[in-house]
Order: sequence, then C-alpha cells, then structure tokens
Amino acid sequence: MNPQKVNADDLLNNLTNVKGIKCWGAHTGIKSMRRDLAIIYSEQPAHAAATFTQNDVVAEPVKLSKKHIADNLAQVIVINAGNANAATGEQGYRGAEAMARTTAKALDIDQEMVLVASTGLIGEPFPTEDIVEGIKVNIPKLSNDPKAGSFAANAILTTDTFAKEGHISFELAGKEINIAGIAKGSGMIHPNMATMLAFVVTDAAIDKQLLDKTFKKAVDRSFNMITVDGDTSTNDMAAVLANGMAGNKEIKSENDPNFAVFEEHLVEMMMHLAKLIISDAEGASKFVEYRINHAESYDTARKIARAVSDSLLVKTAMFGRDPNWGRIIMAAGNAGANFKADQVDLFIGNQKELVQVLDKGMPMDFNKNLIKKLLRESHIRVHLSLNNGKEEATAWGSDITTDYVMFNSVYTT
Amino acid sequence: MNPQKVNADDLLNNLTNVKGIKCWGAHTGIKSMRRDLAIIYSEQPAHAAATFTQNDVVAEPVKLSKKHIADNLAQVIVINAGNANAATGEQGYRGAEAMARTTAKALDIDQEMVLVASTGLIGEPFPTEDIVEGIKVNIPKLSNDPKAGSFAANAILTTDTFAKEGHISFELAGKEINIAGIAKGSGMIHPNMATMLAFVVTDAAIDKQLLDKTFKKAVDRSFNMITVDGDTSTNDMAAVLANGMAGNKEIKSENDPNFAVFEEHLVEMMMHLAKLIISDAEGASKFVEYRINHAESYDTARKIARAVSDSLLVKTAMFGRDPNWGRIIMAAGNAGANFKADQVDLFIGNQKELVQVLDKGMPMDFNKNLIKKLLRESHIRVHLSLNNGKEEATAWGSDITTDYVMFNSVYTT
Repeated sequence: MNPQKVNADDLLNNLTNVKGIKCWGAHTGIKSMRRDLAIIYSEQPAHAAATFTQNDVVAEPVKLSKKHIADNLAQVIVINAGNANAATGEQGYRGAEAMARTTAKALDIDQEMVLVASTGLIGEPFPTEDIVEGIKVNIPKLSNDPKAGSFAANAILTTDTFAKEGHISFELAGKEINIAGIAKGSGMIHPNMATMLAFVVTDAAIDKQLLDKTFKKAVDRSFNMITVDGDTSTNDMAAVLANGMAGNKEIKSENDPNFAVFEEHLVEMMMHLAKLIISDAEGASKFVEYRINHAESYDTARKIARAVSDSLLVKTAMFGRDPNWGRIIMAAGNAGANFKADQVDLFIGNQKELVQVLDKGMPMDFNKNLIKKLLRESHIRVHLSLNNGKEEATAWGSDITTDYVMFNSVYTT
Repeated sequence: MNPQKVNADDLLNNLTNVKGIKCWGAHTGIKSMRRDLAIIYSEQPAHAAATFTQNDVVAEPVKLSKKHIADNLAQVIVINAGNANAATGEQGYRGAEAMARTTAKALDIDQEMVLVASTGLIGEPFPTEDIVEGIKVNIPKLSNDPKAGSFAANAILTTDTFAKEGHISFELAGKEINIAGIAKGSGMIHPNMATMLAFVVTDAAIDKQLLDKTFKKAVDRSFNMITVDGDTSTNDMAAVLANGMAGNKEIKSENDPNFAVFEEHLVEMMMHLAKLIISDAEGASKFVEYRINHAESYDTARKIARAVSDSLLVKTAMFGRDPNWGRIIMAAGNAGANFKADQVDLFIGNQKELVQVLDKGMPMDFNKNLIKKLLRESHIRVHLSLNNGKEEATAWGSDITTDYVMFNSVYTT
C-alpha cells in the first residue's frame, strides 16, 4: 500500500465518517498561530482500549488516562499540543485532571469516561487555565462535519508538516462498518517535543476485552513497526473507541468470522497511519519498507524487520542509495533471532523493481548502477527471504540524512 | 583517566614489555601499502580466554578460535587485516585453518594453541595462499623489541587513524606484573570493515578458569561500554594470554587478595584501550563520558549508561553542544531499568567543570551559555546521579556528526 495513494483516495473521509463521532480542533493560545486543542467525542459510551509509552518516564496525562481506561470504557478524548505536561509534577497532574473534569462536566458524563493526551515541550509548567477555558468554549462546537475531523487532525500536530488521517469502510453481515483515525508524527527533531499519538474510532460493535486484544495486536503491527530514531517518548499513546453504532451484532469471540474481517481492516487502517508518520519524518529523505518473509515464526520475522530498520548503518546506506547487503545482514544478525545468513535471499529496489543481491547468503553479480538508479526513488524496498518457513513481517523506516543531524544538533534546550 | 595522557606516559611501553611475549607485524599484500599481518607469541604455553561477537552472523576465524579456546589454553594469536574472512563459506573456514596450521608448524606447537582473527572486507574470497606465505616468512622475525610490538599494533588496523596500545605494571607479592594490549577501532565508516579486535597479554600467573571469569568481567566494563553506532560486527573478538612468567604464585581464588589487585589493573588497562577506540571513532568530533552513580545496583547503572550513550538524539545533542536534559532523561527511561526521573541529579560539562542541570528531576536555572562554552571541548562529561544507592557504571561514546552520515552514505558496496 502506498501511503500517498491511499491518502488521495480518501481525501474527504476522516473521523467524522464514523457513525456517532463528533470532533473539533481549536486554537487556545498554547501555540502561537496553530490549532492546539482537539476533542474526539462519541455520542454513545464506547468500548475503548489504549497503549502507552514503555518509557519509565511518563507524562502526567498518561498517568491519568491509564486509570481512566482500566475498565475499557471511554466516550471522549481531549488532546492538547504545545505543552507535553511531562516533568511537571503535581501541578501537571492536577492540570490533566482539570482537562478531564471540565470535559466531563460540559458533556454531562462521568469523568472516568474522558481520556487525555498532551504533546509538546517537556518541563514547562502546564497552562491549565488556558486549556480549561479552551475546552469550555469548544465543546459546544463539536460536529460531524468533515472539516471538524480535519480540524482535530491538525490540532494534535507539533513539528509535523501535514495532518495524518485515515478512513476505511467495509461490510460486515450486511452492516457498513467504518474505522477512522488520526495520528501525529515521530520525527523527533525537537527533542522536547513528545512523540507519537494516534486516535482511532470505529462504529463497530465489539466486546471490550476483544477490542483491547485486537487493538494491541494492531499497534504491534503498525506503530510499533516504524522507526525514525529508535527513541520512545514520555507521551506516546494510541487509543481506540468502538461505539457500536454501526448496528452489527456485537463481535464476542475470536472464532466469529467477522472478527478476522474487523481485525484485518483495523490493522490496515493503522498501518496506513504509521506509514504516513514515516513519510513525514523530519530530516529524512526516504521511506523504506523492510519485508522479512519465509520466516519460521512471526516473532522471528518481526525481530529481524525491526533490527534492520533500526540500524543506523542501514539508514545511512539508504540515504546513500547503497545496496549494502553487508550492513543489512549484520543488522539482521544482531536481532537476537537466531538468524542464518547462509540461507537467505536478499532483494533491494523500489516499488516498481526489485533486484536480487544475495542468493542463499552468497553475493550475486548484480548490476550496481541499476540499483543505484532504482534507489533514487523516495520509496525504497528491502526484501529479505529467510527461506525457513511461512511467516512474514514488515517494518517501515526512514533514512538518516545529514539534515537530520543538523536539525537535531542546532536545536537548543 | 584521559586516554591521550596515558598514551603519552606509556609511549614506549607495549606488548613486548610483558615477559616472554614476542611480536611481529608485516606486510603480506592484502592491503596495498600497510602492514596487514600481526603475530603475538608467548614463549610459554599460556592460560587464555576470549569473548566473541554476539552477532548471529559469525566470521570463519571466529568459528575456529571458539574451538581452540575451549580449553582456555593458547600460545599464539595470528591476525590479518584487509579481508574479514566473513561470508566466505567453506573456502574461508579452510583458510582460517591454514593460518592456524601454518603457524603451529612453524613454531612446533599444537594447532589448537593458535587463535586466529581477521578484519577487513566481508564477502571477498579469502587470500589463503598470500597469508600462509606471510606467516612462514614472518614467524622467524618474532621479537621482543618494542618496535615489534608497535608493528603488531599497526598491522591489525583498518580505517583506524592511529595504533591503540596500552601497558600497565604493578607489584604483586614482590613480583613485577605486566599487562599490555592492542586494539583496533569500531568506527564503522566502511560498512564491510569488521569492527573491534583487542588482544591482551600478561605475565601474571593465574588459574585459567579465574582468568576466563575476570577477563569477561573486564570486557563487560570496557569494550562493552563503548558505542559508536550500536552495531556489532561479524568479527568482534577480544582475547587474553596469561603466561605466568612473572613468577608470582598462581592466583587460584577470588578470595586471594592478589586477585582484586590483578583484576583492577586488567580492567584499567582494557578501559584505556576502549577509550582509545572511541577517541578514534571516525566521523565523530567528541569523546563523551557517561557516568551513572548512586545506583541501587551495578546492573541498573550499566543499563542506563549504555542506553544514554547509545541514544542517537543524545549523540546529536552532544555534537550540537546542547545540554539537552530532556533527551538524556528520555534515553535513561528507555533503558528498562525502572528509572525514576524525579529522583535524579544531572550534571553536564567537560573535564574541568560540571554544571548541575537537574535537581531531583526538576530543571535548574542553569547558565546555558556557560555550558555551551564548556561543551566546546572535545572531551565531554555527562554525570547522572540516581540518588538511589551506592553503585556506579561508566560508558563512553562519540557524538554523531554530519560527517558521520556523509562518510557512511557515500561508501559504495
């Protein structure tokens, strides 16, 4: 799937295509000229799930949202950009609580049904008053107009250069199901800008424990398979609301054939958002797909895909349009996945053409000039066949450029 | 310890200061203009130990040396530079065996007493004949003249810009003990150049199992605490020979007070070599010491030191002379060591002066211009106190520069 292509197809579809979802995105003044407050609201209480940063250092809104999601129920997500509310201590935690309390009161729902998220500068006092005021003013503007979805998508951005939206619809036992989402990027040019946020909504009816399980799996196969610089932030969060308003019979078991259809579309929509994030990685010039197949297990394929896409030497080779099989094999060998170099076939190229570089581990007499030419494209593919089984995994990464280093070094705390 | 300073003090001391050690370094023609074959020989059979790359992809000499070191006995180490003998299959393994067999025959010792190592290009056929001929010609030249030690130190280099040698001597129960070593660097500018090699010799008498244990600990505290780009190569190897010719009573137990003295000096000499490697990391402009102290355990301190020194965002901040506490704390939080950000004190500076940046996790009103000035030095210190115990660990790393990316991207396979 080409992120650009899907984006173009779905140009007018977003969060508001999901039945019962209303959004808004507004400017409260934390950021000087841009929208900085997003609200995503479901008319009906929804089943919900979320994943959070694995970093030991956790922002205040993450602490609060972890509590509120514990029952796998939520109805609204409130996000501010410009201030990460991290390293803010007690003052910050009270600010996160104020966001939830104000939202709940304005919508006349229980405070525990509110999830909060923040992204922006770390270590600045949290501007609770401005945000509380912004929530009060903007809750009445919640709307299912498509532009309201776009406002929300734009309001969560920090250093991103474009809004990341996705939508997919399909039929399930005669009912139309919608899944939509927004995300913000992981290009950590500004070190104190918190990293990745993603919010997904669906009108499917699905058991809350099953939603939790399938969402975590989808996060593993999408947002956890992208890499820019390997660091995870204090604020990373992905959440889903499933309000059941599509009217399908609730999916209650993994054995229900509808479950597989739902999961497949959820994963596809989330992969789309993940790829958009990589397309917008700042200081990067290339989007690289690392597909590892014919593996003995998904776990093996996944470890190797992540290790190769994370390797600094592979990233610089991609920047240099270098079909550098030595670095790819070395990175795969570092994955801790019992990698057998003498069994693998390796292919490198772009979306149109792949050239075989290794055959059962031995270098082929490939045409270097052809590959260099193929690698001029901004969308590159590295395809490693382990010849060892039937499973596969794909990771997506950026290259590392001289610009990346410049951007990341000139920023001053 | 300042690497440059120690190096200057020990200018004329090297491998050949160790009793019973003879060396040579010669040009066999694998590399066009430089020495490319090193031999380190002990007149007496020695207790020996080695550590090897953790990469699943392993060079042929590593396979052979693993077999030969299994009994913790060895007498000679033969190293070639210019060809890594990796991804060479059966032909390469037979080449490694020929190196060992030829050396053993010329010295009239058992083939199993020979360790072999290679560094250089991966995936090129191994030039067995040239190397075998080189060994035959050069074994008779083995010498304990200091220049022979220097020849060996120079003959193992690839992209290194200077030879890395160290020597330390101390008294143990009335006997003079020497420990010396050579190393080659980890600056992986040339992706197919294998990474780190280190060879240590000592005239101490020490039980072979105890030598194995203390050497592995010393490797963990020295070579395993340095990072340039986080990748490990197919050829990484560190080995030690202890020939007992100092005449001390053999150290047989960790409870022997002489053991602690020996271990301390072994670790110090190996840390010296490790720091020299970082000083010569290509494409790097700074040497950075990351000291983590007041930790509840050595393991915690070590994990955090490694995570911070490995972080690409921290490395770019060091290049930019940026006292970026946010990146340091985030990297520490990613160490998987239950890091408590709100308890830590953080100091950043150079060898002469450290400035406190965080106090119990809260940003201090530090003088940014002073720190920027301190960070102009090429030797930088980052000092993180966990305020949580008595243990500490130190890691050493380079910065990541625009030059690093350029060097690594323009190379073509």
